[in-house]
Amino acid sequence: MSSEQALTTRAADFSAWYNEVVMRAELADYSPVRGCMVIRPRGYRIWELMQRALDDMFKAAGHENAYFPLFIPQSFLAKEAAHVAGFAPQTAVVTHGGGKELEEPLVVRPTSETIIYAMFAKWIQSYRDLPVLLNQWVNIVRWEMRTRLFLRTTEFLWQEGHTAHATAEEAETEARLILGIYRRFAEEWMAMPVITGIKTDSEKFAGAVRTYAIEALMQDNRALQAGTSHHLGQNFARAFEVRYQTMAGDMEYVWSTSWGVSTRLIGGLVMTHSDDRGLVCPPRLAPLHVVIVPIWKSDTDRQGVLEAAQRALQALADAGISAQVDDRDAVKPGAKYYHWEARGVPVRLEIGPRDVAQGQAVLARRAGGKSTVPLTGLPAAVREAMDQIQAALLEAARERREANSVRQVRGKRELIDLMNGSAGLVYAGYCGDAACETAVKEETKATIRVLPDEEFRSSPAPATCVWCGRPAVTEAVWAKAY
Amino acid sequence: MSSEQALTTRAADFSAWYNEVVMRAELADYSPVRGCMVIRPRGYRIWELMQRALDDMFKAAGHENAYFPLFIPQSFLAKEAAHVAGFAPQTAVVTHGGGKELEEPLVVRPTSETIIYAMFAKWIQSYRDLPVLLNQWVNIVRWEMRTRLFLRTTEFLWQEGHTAHATAEEAETEARLILGIYRRFAEEWMAMPVITGIKTDSEKFAGAVRTYAIEALMQDNRALQAGTSHHLGQNFARAFEVRYQTMAGDMEYVWSTSWGVSTRLIGGLVMTHSDDRGLVCPPRLAPLHVVIVPIWKSDTDRQGVLEAAQRALQALADAGISAQVDDRDAVKPGAKYYHWEARGVPVRLEIGPRDVAQGQAVLARRAGGKSTVPLTGLPAAVREAMDQIQAALLEAARERREANSVRQVRGKRELIDLMNGSAGLVYAGYCGDAACETAVKEETKATIRVLPDEEFRSSPAPATCVWCGRPAVTEAVWAKAY
Repeated sequence: MSSEQALTTRAADFSAWYNEVVMRAELADYSPVRGCMVIRPRGYRIWELMQRALDDMFKAAGHENAYFPLFIPQSFLAKEAAHVAGFAPQTAVVTHGGGKELEEPLVVRPTSETIIYAMFAKWIQSYRDLPVLLNQWVNIVRWEMRTRLFLRTTEFLWQEGHTAHATAEEAETEARLILGIYRRFAEEWMAMPVITGIKTDSEKFAGAVRTYAIEALMQDNRALQAGTSHHLGQNFARAFEVRYQTMAGDMEYVWSTSWGVSTRLIGGLVMTHSDDRGLVCPPRLAPLHVVIVPIWKSDTDRQGVLEAAQRALQALADAGISAQVDDRDAVKPGAKYYHWEARGVPVRLEIGPRDVAQGQAVLARRAGGKSTVPLTGLPAAVREAMDQIQAALLEAARERREANSVRQVRGKRELIDLMNGSAGLVYAGYCGDAACETAVKEETKATIRVLPDEEFRSSPAPATCVWCGRPAVTEAVWAKAY
Repeated sequence: MSSEQALTTRAADFSAWYNEVVMRAELADYSPVRGCMVIRPRGYRIWELMQRALDDMFKAAGHENAYFPLFIPQSFLAKEAAHVAGFAPQTAVVTHGGGKELEEPLVVRPTSETIIYAMFAKWIQSYRDLPVLLNQWVNIVRWEMRTRLFLRTTEFLWQEGHTAHATAEEAETEARLILGIYRRFAEEWMAMPVITGIKTDSEKFAGAVRTYAIEALMQDNRALQAGTSHHLGQNFARAFEVRYQTMAGDMEYVWSTSWGVSTRLIGGLVMTHSDDRGLVCPPRLAPLHVVIVPIWKSDTDRQGVLEAAQRALQALADAGISAQVDDRDAVKPGAKYYHWEARGVPVRLEIGPRDVAQGQAVLARRAGGKSTVPLTGLPAAVREAMDQIQAALLEAARERREANSVRQVRGKRELIDLMNGSAGLVYAGYCGDAACETAVKEETKATIRVLPDEEFRSSPAPATCVWCGRPAVTEAVWAKAY
């Protein structure tokens, strides 16, 4: 794919467009290893910024980072019945080490509950040892048949939190606290609005009592599960004998949670904001905030313009704004605009001879219009523009989601039509019977993304199940999903 | 191991002492997975601080982070002859994925040159694409027979830099630049003095033209290789066909480097500074800077002392100094001192009723003496104490190393006696013949740690090889090593 060619449009082929945006912006590349990708510096920088923001929030809430082994003895996985059923088919298995066949094969972690609970059993004896609030930033392997850059890869990067508590209430509070952090991060950093809620049993984590999730709606009207937080009850505590002595002297199993977000978020960011010119990146997660494009025709103009560009760069750098001057001689300004637009740089500053004379620059927003700003006080003007862009991206994404959400859907026929059409999120009544959920999935490929939290629920509440017509016990959000 | 018991002393059993220090300080723990450890929050926090410092230095020198796959097709490893000979015997091999046997087994990365050069071949076409300056922070697996917490484990964490350049000179400059960064980090952050130099062929990286290293001397007089930086020449470029078009239009192989430091550094930190009471941690890498111990006998004193402790905590936190109040009721001050000393907290503040009345606290250094400091201006006093401690630890370690270094060793007999005795670093002439190196190793278990850089060389330069008596072509530093 030459960098001169236009991208496939979203309308023509959303999936091809997505891959081209990721490749053109140099976020990631295909690797020679089946199902595994390479995260290139621009993509990894987004991940670093995501990590920093989330890690600060986790730590502010009392969590500490640790590191547990990549390998898990195969027998550990089998200790929790639902867990092994969910994950065993997806594992990569190490059978040889140091030139010899291993006595017991090792699984490359598909998630780390089992190895972590083996350690919890060693560390937790008394109520004084609780709560344990841990997190780790690691690589994960789940063998996938069909892979997509960032969205579904055999290896991915994530954080996984694992906590142990004295009571069910504390574990529930923790699972909810983390869901709130995920939502805040998605909205305030990624400018990606999400709905929160509970997963049905068929969609919950293998081994959980209850799974909470944040769900976002992409531009192709497919939903993306962007983060999950699980209340594990005492399931893993029982499987690994993690017990503590209460204040009263009794022995009790701990109550626990686990929760994670992954590099999949980068795919969500791309599909939420980008356009047919390429990546649109919210300023708070942008690897590069500003590109400065000096414009000149004559050699006499050249020096003055380049000096002004360098001064602008320095002023921005001093203010903690990352910027770069594109002073390539052989490339025309228009080609430079095109180049940096594809890479999602939120703000472009154009500085020509007339601008220098007038002490100004043209500030062009990647998503939004142009304005003229004074060269003195540039950092403040850029910061204000970035704040506006950040807010506008969230607002636009929220409007798009709402415009593509349908509520008060009454019956089977309407649901099928919506799902065969271009509906995004469909809110409708649900009887709670898994048979209806399965039937909808078979008929429409849509799944229940969440049973939404109160603030997202429709008013009036739907009275009947959209599929079977029996009384609804709850409202559900249906969508086709990644 | 109860936390009441005294540690094994260094003099009695250095190896047992080391393990006990690591476990008591809660830096790491043994895992149920053979050869793999768990890095606990206090240990991982040291690693995070190390990462932040190194990453800042790498980025300031123009490097970017990326992420390459964990798995490497077995055939890739074989493309560079020396490389496969060095690493194949140590690999963990994935033979099954998603329930099926793989057509080609995948190796869990023992280092990432091969997978990275496969990508370089795709990304690098022209001199305009150079230099490529990448780094990644990842987990690594090398099957080890004998493992030690942090020092040698089957899985470990590290950073690996990989760079490609247009000329041999640029690659050489890069390898040297990184060696300088490693040295600066070891000395300024870890307070661990190192000598720098070149490895002999027998000790160099499998696939390198030249390996540079930083070497430190531990308290048991064994040397620790703490970081390596390799000039790879065109070896990997040839193996993976990484060529670029020069300005003149010719096709040339790139010149490249790779370099890494790992969680082994934490072991080096422990063995450089700790004492028979437990961990001593340099303030710049301490997970917790200050523990505040309030001291009271009567209930009337209790409240005033605890309030003063909280005010002190707040003042320190506001100044960016991490602190914690140990207000446990059931534990006596002496036991608290002991507890926090074992965990290496650099500064302890003791606040009793008389101190509150006099507006002061007793500041006790983990390594060093006590002094009285005013409660107003506490952050400045603590910061000054931490700076002193940081400098004193480096100075003490340097003095210890020099006191245990022997120069101008003249002959075989003296070298054998030194190595059978308690010598640390032995500087002596070397003829450059690998046969002498091998003979010394067989006779004494000592190896050439480095051919030292100029600033570390003896004056006058040794004239003859310490082993064979032929003319010396260089000076070498011999030691028993981890």
